[in-house]
Amino acid sequence: MAIFTAYDNAEILAALRVAAPHAEIHTDDQVAREHSANGNAQLEIDGRILAYVAAGDVADIQGVLKIARQYHIPVVPQGADTSTVIGADGLNGSIILSTVRMNRIKEISKGDLLAVVEPGVINGDLDKEARKQGLFYAPDPGSKPISSIGGNAATNAGGMSTVKYGATTDNVLGLKVVLADGREIKLGGRTYKHAFSYDLTHLFVGSEGTLGIITEITVKLNPIPIGTPVVGVAYFDNMTALAKGVENLRLSGIYPVTLEALDGLTVAALDRYEGTHYAEGAEAMLIFRLDAGGEASLKMAEQILTADHAKNIKVTSNPDEAGAIIKLRQDMLPAVFANGQHIMEDMAVPLSKLPEMMDYIAEVAKDLNVEIYTAGHAGDGNVHPTVIWPADQTEPPKEALQAIRMMFRKALALGGTISGEHAVGMSKNQWNNEELGFDVDEIQHQIKDLFDPLNILNPKRKID
Amino acid sequence: MAIFTAYDNAEILAALRVAAPHAEIHTDDQVAREHSANGNAQLEIDGRILAYVAAGDVADIQGVLKIARQYHIPVVPQGADTSTVIGADGLNGSIILSTVRMNRIKEISKGDLLAVVEPGVINGDLDKEARKQGLFYAPDPGSKPISSIGGNAATNAGGMSTVKYGATTDNVLGLKVVLADGREIKLGGRTYKHAFSYDLTHLFVGSEGTLGIITEITVKLNPIPIGTPVVGVAYFDNMTALAKGVENLRLSGIYPVTLEALDGLTVAALDRYEGTHYAEGAEAMLIFRLDAGGEASLKMAEQILTADHAKNIKVTSNPDEAGAIIKLRQDMLPAVFANGQHIMEDMAVPLSKLPEMMDYIAEVAKDLNVEIYTAGHAGDGNVHPTVIWPADQTEPPKEALQAIRMMFRKALALGGTISGEHAVGMSKNQWNNEELGFDVDEIQHQIKDLFDPLNILNPKRKID
Repeated sequence: MAIFTAYDNAEILAALRVAAPHAEIHTDDQVAREHSANGNAQLEIDGRILAYVAAGDVADIQGVLKIARQYHIPVVPQGADTSTVIGADGLNGSIILSTVRMNRIKEISKGDLLAVVEPGVINGDLDKEARKQGLFYAPDPGSKPISSIGGNAATNAGGMSTVKYGATTDNVLGLKVVLADGREIKLGGRTYKHAFSYDLTHLFVGSEGTLGIITEITVKLNPIPIGTPVVGVAYFDNMTALAKGVENLRLSGIYPVTLEALDGLTVAALDRYEGTHYAEGAEAMLIFRLDAGGEASLKMAEQILTADHAKNIKVTSNPDEAGAIIKLRQDMLPAVFANGQHIMEDMAVPLSKLPEMMDYIAEVAKDLNVEIYTAGHAGDGNVHPTVIWPADQTEPPKEALQAIRMMFRKALALGGTISGEHAVGMSKNQWNNEELGFDVDEIQHQIKDLFDPLNILNPKRKID
Repeated sequence: MAIFTAYDNAEILAALRVAAPHAEIHTDDQVAREHSANGNAQLEIDGRILAYVAAGDVADIQGVLKIARQYHIPVVPQGADTSTVIGADGLNGSIILSTVRMNRIKEISKGDLLAVVEPGVINGDLDKEARKQGLFYAPDPGSKPISSIGGNAATNAGGMSTVKYGATTDNVLGLKVVLADGREIKLGGRTYKHAFSYDLTHLFVGSEGTLGIITEITVKLNPIPIGTPVVGVAYFDNMTALAKGVENLRLSGIYPVTLEALDGLTVAALDRYEGTHYAEGAEAMLIFRLDAGGEASLKMAEQILTADHAKNIKVTSNPDEAGAIIKLRQDMLPAVFANGQHIMEDMAVPLSKLPEMMDYIAEVAKDLNVEIYTAGHAGDGNVHPTVIWPADQTEPPKEALQAIRMMFRKALALGGTISGEHAVGMSKNQWNNEELGFDVDEIQHQIKDLFDPLNILNPKRKID
């Protein structure tokens, strides 16, 4: 006996076209496939989407939600589609609602040190525009050249300079959000201090499209610090020694911008990929960047690293050389991913627990005989171990999955989180109870229910 | 006809004593009066409280809430009772629930750059303890020596160094909170990066005790920056010129820690109070502080201020002299309040709107013939105009109230907020609709209803 459906897709699509007149609406398989899965090896889109809708304006978004409410259709909000946690891939029968065409920088205000942008603006594009006025946009996820501010806000993306400038949430002053019921609300605003309302702005940041669709973001811009930044590399015998050096740099009062760790496997992969010779046989490389602290800061950094047994410290204030070093870190993902199938993970631990976490990852790799490339934003205790297995096996070996589970549990046992900056999506939503406990898990569902009683916004993700 | 009450107070108090065995419970008028009103001239406690309860532990708090739920008694959470917005004074028939005795610094972790404290810990006490380890606690409201971290978190208190280090919310990593239903939940944690849960931590920060009772706070600590800080004063012909100088300092890339503005009236009041001679007949004085930026930063600051027509810039890196200047700003409140009855206000505007706001305040004072002393944290657009009237009039003149209304509306018209760092309490809760609009006002009530369906937690405040 078949389930009797009251409406057929053609009818719904016709209504959708009327409700979202400025949207680009695609229903062919090709487009569906293009906007799904991100090459993520763990899971794939679980069926056929109803439509991919690239909204032209806020009214389109409101129209899509009206249809979604009417026909009870799941809506998957999508920015530039760079999620690493299966956060924005289509679900069976869903509408992918993309804000990628809403990519206007509405305002850069030098006087107010802020920008107002539509959600589809690419992070790097905003930064470039800001720099023309002597300012910059600080959050710099690895995906900076390709990810959108809307997606960054929805996932609370971090990056290399979070150590000094905070993650996306720390740089968001205000939002406009279209709720599931179609109302557009305005949260926060243009002031740097605010103690009036409940902080709903930052409740929406990091909510992964489950509470509403972000339609406008007001973000802080920073003045470019005076002086010349210095970028350096330092080598260590192992990641544990490196992590100790990182801790001492953070404690020193020189306020580094960037403290990136790469293990020996990762640097070797980079050398293969780039044709460079950074590895030098060392097991751990630190990339650091100091803003404008002058000679005193640099000298102190070198002293600390030397005391912590760093070998062969190289520093440069030449912009080309500095750029080459930073590019090395930016190219890490393709360089590592070139070695086989992969799952890249993301955990954060309290700062002092980084050495123990690093040790543990090395142990797990050895014990389970799994290849793990570990890098990360060591300055904020954020590690990215990437598990690699042979390219000809599409399914991850069970040891790979076991290694990830063990690393997650270790991060939690150390007082950490299993998502430092990549959010939850469909990859980690089963871990809510384990990380947060039952009470907070339940409160999350109550908040969700308050904003989205029909559960049409990005279901099966984040908390579900 | 009298209302028939099912329970008498003696019965409820007896139950309270059983439910909160480690609490100090007072019911006499003297104690009630001591813990009410804060000398605030606008409103007074609206009747007699049932009891003042100083909890000894979390179980006491849970016990108080159990009794409150059972007998439907309003609970007014209170820290060190320093609210400037009638945020923590007793209501008729209420229980004042103080956390002031829960004042243990549970942990200072140098390695993790954080502290874990009970809510009654005094801000300045934590800072002192942290400094013994080469760290400091950044948020520094004017009430630093007397206000509690719990109260600071409940109100999202700001301060002088918010320009560089953020307000309280930016320095909170995690919370424990007892909900109205008695459950203690744990939010956030010990990591500097976090992208797993909804950001409930910062929803509770600034919620003024209306959503739950904060029982533990994990806060960031910062390493003390290297080098010697410099403190300076600069004089301007008027506040508008000063505000322009502040904007240019912020834009310069030297990242000042503190940019405080005091108008001529305020400086003169300080001179009278302190026996100093800072006023020099100038209409506006800027106090600035630079961390450790070295000679280059200081030179640039001086150049900028000179170009913006500052007169007689004095700088010092002598700790005693620097301390004396900072103390001047800290003593501002008593010095200003000594001139009569007062209402001190708190607004924040977008950075570039500060000159216009300053101009407007001066106009209002002139037009309505009201004495307004204006100072503020100019570096984040946060102004504190204090309206003064003769000491022998207990009620504020209607022109004083009108002046405040006009300043509020101007701040909102400039894209600002009517509370930059003092929260809402009972002083500003009538303004919710005007600042936030109906939709957000309603959502705040829905959130409140979710966490506190009986409306026992700090009713008539914040959103009510």
